[in-house]
Amino acid sequence: MSAFDSVAAFDRALRSLPGPDAGSIEAARRRQAALTKPAGSLGRLEEIALFLAGWQGRARPRIERGRAAIFAGNHGVAARGVSAFPPEVTAQMVANFRAGGAAINALAAAAGLELHVTPIALDRPTADFTIAPAMDESECLEALSAGAAAVTPDFDLIVLGEMGIGNSTAAAALAALCFGGPAEQWVGPGTGVAGDALARKADVVSRAIARHGSAPRTPFEMLRRVGGREIAAMAGAVLAARLARVPVMLDGYIGCAAVAPLAAAYPAITAHCLAGHRSAEPAHGRLLARLGLAPLLDLGMRLGEGSGGAVAVAVVRAALAAHDGMATFAEAGVSGGS
Amino acid sequence: MSAFDSVAAFDRALRSLPGPDAGSIEAARRRQAALTKPAGSLGRLEEIALFLAGWQGRARPRIERGRAAIFAGNHGVAARGVSAFPPEVTAQMVANFRAGGAAINALAAAAGLELHVTPIALDRPTADFTIAPAMDESECLEALSAGAAAVTPDFDLIVLGEMGIGNSTAAAALAALCFGGPAEQWVGPGTGVAGDALARKADVVSRAIARHGSAPRTPFEMLRRVGGREIAAMAGAVLAARLARVPVMLDGYIGCAAVAPLAAAYPAITAHCLAGHRSAEPAHGRLLARLGLAPLLDLGMRLGEGSGGAVAVAVVRAALAAHDGMATFAEAGVSGGS
Repeated sequence: MSAFDSVAAFDRALRSLPGPDAGSIEAARRRQAALTKPAGSLGRLEEIALFLAGWQGRARPRIERGRAAIFAGNHGVAARGVSAFPPEVTAQMVANFRAGGAAINALAAAAGLELHVTPIALDRPTADFTIAPAMDESECLEALSAGAAAVTPDFDLIVLGEMGIGNSTAAAALAALCFGGPAEQWVGPGTGVAGDALARKADVVSRAIARHGSAPRTPFEMLRRVGGREIAAMAGAVLAARLARVPVMLDGYIGCAAVAPLAAAYPAITAHCLAGHRSAEPAHGRLLARLGLAPLLDLGMRLGEGSGGAVAVAVVRAALAAHDGMATFAEAGVSGGS
Repeated sequence: MSAFDSVAAFDRALRSLPGPDAGSIEAARRRQAALTKPAGSLGRLEEIALFLAGWQGRARPRIERGRAAIFAGNHGVAARGVSAFPPEVTAQMVANFRAGGAAINALAAAAGLELHVTPIALDRPTADFTIAPAMDESECLEALSAGAAAVTPDFDLIVLGEMGIGNSTAAAALAALCFGGPAEQWVGPGTGVAGDALARKADVVSRAIARHGSAPRTPFEMLRRVGGREIAAMAGAVLAARLARVPVMLDGYIGCAAVAPLAAAYPAITAHCLAGHRSAEPAHGRLLARLGLAPLLDLGMRLGEGSGGAVAVAVVRAALAAHDGMATFAEAGVSGGS
């Protein structure tokens, strides 16, 4: 996709979000009604088939080419001891993705997705956003564009994921800025912090709110001030996917927080998004509700990397298999319901 | 598996339930702790890997051969207008299974499962259990044995499913007999009844409780009196799988009701079972809780046929892919958590 080369271009895209193809949805709905099962008995599997029909513009949607696009970035606030892992783990895990040893490698393969990893300036952590904006304008545009670059219209579905030590702190700050409420409402264990580290995390988010709360409430400014490179990249990918009508599978708390600044101003932005799961991060459920998304899975996962989104792709594949493969009442000679 | 050729043989099996292999569980736990992710961050995926390790007796469990075993039976109470579909649909759907056109065909294929369909005496509906026991002793033993026959030790996982117009009424009667409470607490729309038909269903279950409530509370007697052939077959399959240490994936309300009489007397019977999903049938959640099972999915499905169980197999495959495919911290050169 073309890059977001100015803030104006980014804002312009947000103001011109395309919708799904109504004709394909209606054709898929007619097909669902004719399949050999009580009407509605496949529950969300039926909704998923219609959702994909609309965004793919096909009465019988498919996932022939699916991608898990993972973005990595480093965070100035990691120096404040908000994570259970040291910052060098971000680059180590990118190496692990490339060597094939991470959870997302196994889960993307199981889901039939190609894996696409984009580390963004790992040697330049964002600024500590308790002191200054995390990124300057050009850095944020660069990250948004890196996200857009991972999206091409030939994908049937894109799962978004992330890696970045400290990024659940940035996500909490973003959610708090977008939707209000005290820091404590939006912070959680992340990779597994508790006690003093968790208190430090809440304090960092409180300081972020105090420093940036009076800045302009635009999607770009919120992403730039308290986001991170991988977070802005996911926001850019969601927007680029929408322009290309490519459906998106979101993963956990951080991926949802990336969409939050866009959704706070343009709630329709999530219409082409599925929420793969509700993670164990306590605030994720609240964030999903604010985004108007109902998660497909609730398995206590809290890994990131797009892992929950990748697992949820199997549910989507099941939905499409039933939609495409089942016989109609007429074809099978089965009596319809009363 | 050998058949249950007498009530005594069935009872004897229930009294000698084997447990999982503790050594394989411990080996799988050590492996999980070494994989490149925060401890516990894959949530239930980690639990599933340990569960399968224990029952398969392998530190790295697998699903090379998985089966969806579907049983069909007809019910005397169907004549009382408790379903949205006429009784002949049972046989029509069995034909649809064999022709490959049903939801379970598509979903089993998507999950990499072979499909095994066992219709049991479809031309002989069970007796109307508001008047008499649904089955005599030999009929019930025959159905239990038909279930056991679908289980062989070379399967890595078996999904159980059913088809039988009227069987959500039998399931409600079984649950009520096993766990008490008024009929209304255990009946629901099934394939989609409401209003008068739903009231008839509750009335039928009330009559079943009145007629059979004072009979001996043994698993066999409860299955025989208010179960059905496909229901007894699932009970037999669960027990046979346990004897062979083959893990079982349960589907919806009816499959869970089949286990209820066994679990009421021997709560440990569900230890080798996963609950694929919570269905839209309102009483399913309560029944799962009584069985001590937490569903993997909650997608508003209510089709039966093993459909929800088959979708949940994808979650199991994801769990095993991560367990087997990920690198350890040492292999990947990633720093561990604090």
